[in-house]
Amino acid sequence: MSSWVPGAAESGFGPSHLPYGVVTTPGGHPELAVRIGDHALSLARLHDMGKLDGVVPHAVEVFDIGSLDGLLERGPDQWAAVRRRLTEIVTDPAEELMAHEAMLHLVDTTALLPWTVADYVDFYSSEHHATNVGRIFRPDADALTPNWKHLPIGYHGRAGTVVVSGTEVVRPNGQRKPPHEESPVFGPSRRLDVEVEVGFVVGAGSSQGTAVPASDFTEHVFGVVLVNDWSARDIQAWEYVPLGPFLAKSFATSVSAWVTPLEALASARVAPPAQDPTPFPYLDDPDPWALDLRLSLELERGGASAVVSRPPFATTYWTPGQQLAHLTVNGASLRTGDLYASGTVSGPEVGQRGSFLELSWGGREPLVVEGLGEVAFLEDGDVVTIRGEATAVDGGTLTLGEVVGRIRPAV
Amino acid sequence: MSSWVPGAAESGFGPSHLPYGVVTTPGGHPELAVRIGDHALSLARLHDMGKLDGVVPHAVEVFDIGSLDGLLERGPDQWAAVRRRLTEIVTDPAEELMAHEAMLHLVDTTALLPWTVADYVDFYSSEHHATNVGRIFRPDADALTPNWKHLPIGYHGRAGTVVVSGTEVVRPNGQRKPPHEESPVFGPSRRLDVEVEVGFVVGAGSSQGTAVPASDFTEHVFGVVLVNDWSARDIQAWEYVPLGPFLAKSFATSVSAWVTPLEALASARVAPPAQDPTPFPYLDDPDPWALDLRLSLELERGGASAVVSRPPFATTYWTPGQQLAHLTVNGASLRTGDLYASGTVSGPEVGQRGSFLELSWGGREPLVVEGLGEVAFLEDGDVVTIRGEATAVDGGTLTLGEVVGRIRPAV
Repeated sequence: MSSWVPGAAESGFGPSHLPYGVVTTPGGHPELAVRIGDHALSLARLHDMGKLDGVVPHAVEVFDIGSLDGLLERGPDQWAAVRRRLTEIVTDPAEELMAHEAMLHLVDTTALLPWTVADYVDFYSSEHHATNVGRIFRPDADALTPNWKHLPIGYHGRAGTVVVSGTEVVRPNGQRKPPHEESPVFGPSRRLDVEVEVGFVVGAGSSQGTAVPASDFTEHVFGVVLVNDWSARDIQAWEYVPLGPFLAKSFATSVSAWVTPLEALASARVAPPAQDPTPFPYLDDPDPWALDLRLSLELERGGASAVVSRPPFATTYWTPGQQLAHLTVNGASLRTGDLYASGTVSGPEVGQRGSFLELSWGGREPLVVEGLGEVAFLEDGDVVTIRGEATAVDGGTLTLGEVVGRIRPAV
Repeated sequence: MSSWVPGAAESGFGPSHLPYGVVTTPGGHPELAVRIGDHALSLARLHDMGKLDGVVPHAVEVFDIGSLDGLLERGPDQWAAVRRRLTEIVTDPAEELMAHEAMLHLVDTTALLPWTVADYVDFYSSEHHATNVGRIFRPDADALTPNWKHLPIGYHGRAGTVVVSGTEVVRPNGQRKPPHEESPVFGPSRRLDVEVEVGFVVGAGSSQGTAVPASDFTEHVFGVVLVNDWSARDIQAWEYVPLGPFLAKSFATSVSAWVTPLEALASARVAPPAQDPTPFPYLDDPDPWALDLRLSLELERGGASAVVSRPPFATTYWTPGQQLAHLTVNGASLRTGDLYASGTVSGPEVGQRGSFLELSWGGREPLVVEGLGEVAFLEDGDVVTIRGEATAVDGGTLTLGEVVGRIRPAV
């Protein structure tokens, strides 16, 4: 598949990708768009030109609201219809002349959070991550808790502090208890960390009181984003017993500005890791797949930068379908805009760990990174970038929208 | 203060209360209303009649959207202005003739969830409850975790499954691990429980990266609801280590249909319990108060019913202002519609415990209730009602909107 958009094919944002986002131009309104090459193709403008007529009913509520929310709730048939039409537009040379009017250079735009996050759930589904964290935080106990291989552990995060890539993150204040002190102390976190994750965006909701089986995954889930679930490890260690992480996470969670539709990742599906013991039938996934997303974690500090880790998403123990089935087995409803994330992705190798907690083994063994020196946790001014790529449906390489964030000093 | 509405004064919903809700009539649209006596006074209709002209700017977006959301975001000055005008209307006999046209008998209406819940946080702020739960779940450890008296422990719940009083609750399925079994089992929860709580509804939001001190409580918090945080204790016991409760809670949380404005509870303020150790300065509450809300938990089973507990909210260790300060000290923003709840309210006496877990001491010592027999956890068909009352600003008794739910069998 080739596109008339110059440079699109080699950019990772070719005609077989077309992720959705929302952009503004100076003085303008938010516009729903798809990314192609280094351009945003405005669906709002295409619609104004009549180029999207007849694609979906009540099209104004999909294309003209400055948000992905309207499309999300429509479900898989309309998602496919819009994608088909957009693919025609970016690949048919006859469309170039008019569609060009709807193309915005990304450098002239600002990306906004593409959709309204309803509920945010974070799982804990990487066996290597959970094992590492268990060893670091609970050295006297089994690394994995007894429930870990029976269910995808998860918890709710704060939806209202999910921010789009590029948003600066203020170092959180909070209580922490240094191991050698009798009492906790209060102040800026000294162990600010990242979590490299993959998030799933729910489009079509479900009814309260009804479970959604893994086999219905594509009826409900629209697409994928990269996620940085910023975490203050010292705050977390002191607060999390018995009800789990709270302020250690709730100050900010960053997501990519571009939501990759599931369809674009059809060629990235691979067999998931074997599961032992066999999960309960409600966690059966009749067509189980993992996604071979090759992630990377880059740290920029003092003008230098380096990739410090390459977490392989395909190693995640619980599949996205199983996570969805678990999330709803108690009758919890899904809503348009729900986000659920994988939990930190860590592979078996040291260079595949998805958090600085693991990379520096609780801060005790700082990384030595060429150009950056010793790295344990995040310093003020650090810039963290999470990237991801996969095999596209046309055999090329697809680049997921990156997640960038710079650390600002505590207030 | 007296009202021309017959029976209002003695109803607990007199002219000094005026809680907000949203009701519909058959075939009608949702209407924002205040409750007085056994009537809903429709603000949508009053506005149509011109009776609310000039009270707030852009009045359509407050009175005509079928939700409390529009008023919530306006902040304390406009909350007070609307309340002043409504108080005039219900107390001035000259208003009766016209306002009567805006009065709906509650029996002719259905109550809807009054506002859009943004994020839902549940605290764990009753010392008696936390002590009881610690003794039941962790008999070999200290009853209170080391952090408990240093910070108000809390966690995020599922906003999308908050439902209005009267909504039936389907018994959740899930994994549980019976103590004598090697492996978990799957099926309907056998230890379905209630949590008697008080919730605070956030009106005006705050900026990400900024803490909200306890002294700003009335700038942000609009009012109070009763909450039943339904809990499946067997699911919870198996899943909650290490990241806290998830499916044990996320199937449903019920709130009252009527939101009592803070102003109506001015006379219910009492001194909170003494705190030792002294909390960190960020938890200072310059004008600390607890609310003397007298709660009750009623169980209806097999046609009989009885009040099984009377939890005293005034005994809660952490104040609502401290909870707000803690929730935001890491820079987490508030949004219009956020709900934060106290956690289960339990007093020092056996008959003041706010959950069946505590009342039956983990199921080991079932209550014997006249007319109901032995009671441990909830059975299908059970109806639970949480009620609350307080001293009104005119010296009378104010009744909080009740929270009722009936248990339906698992699917």
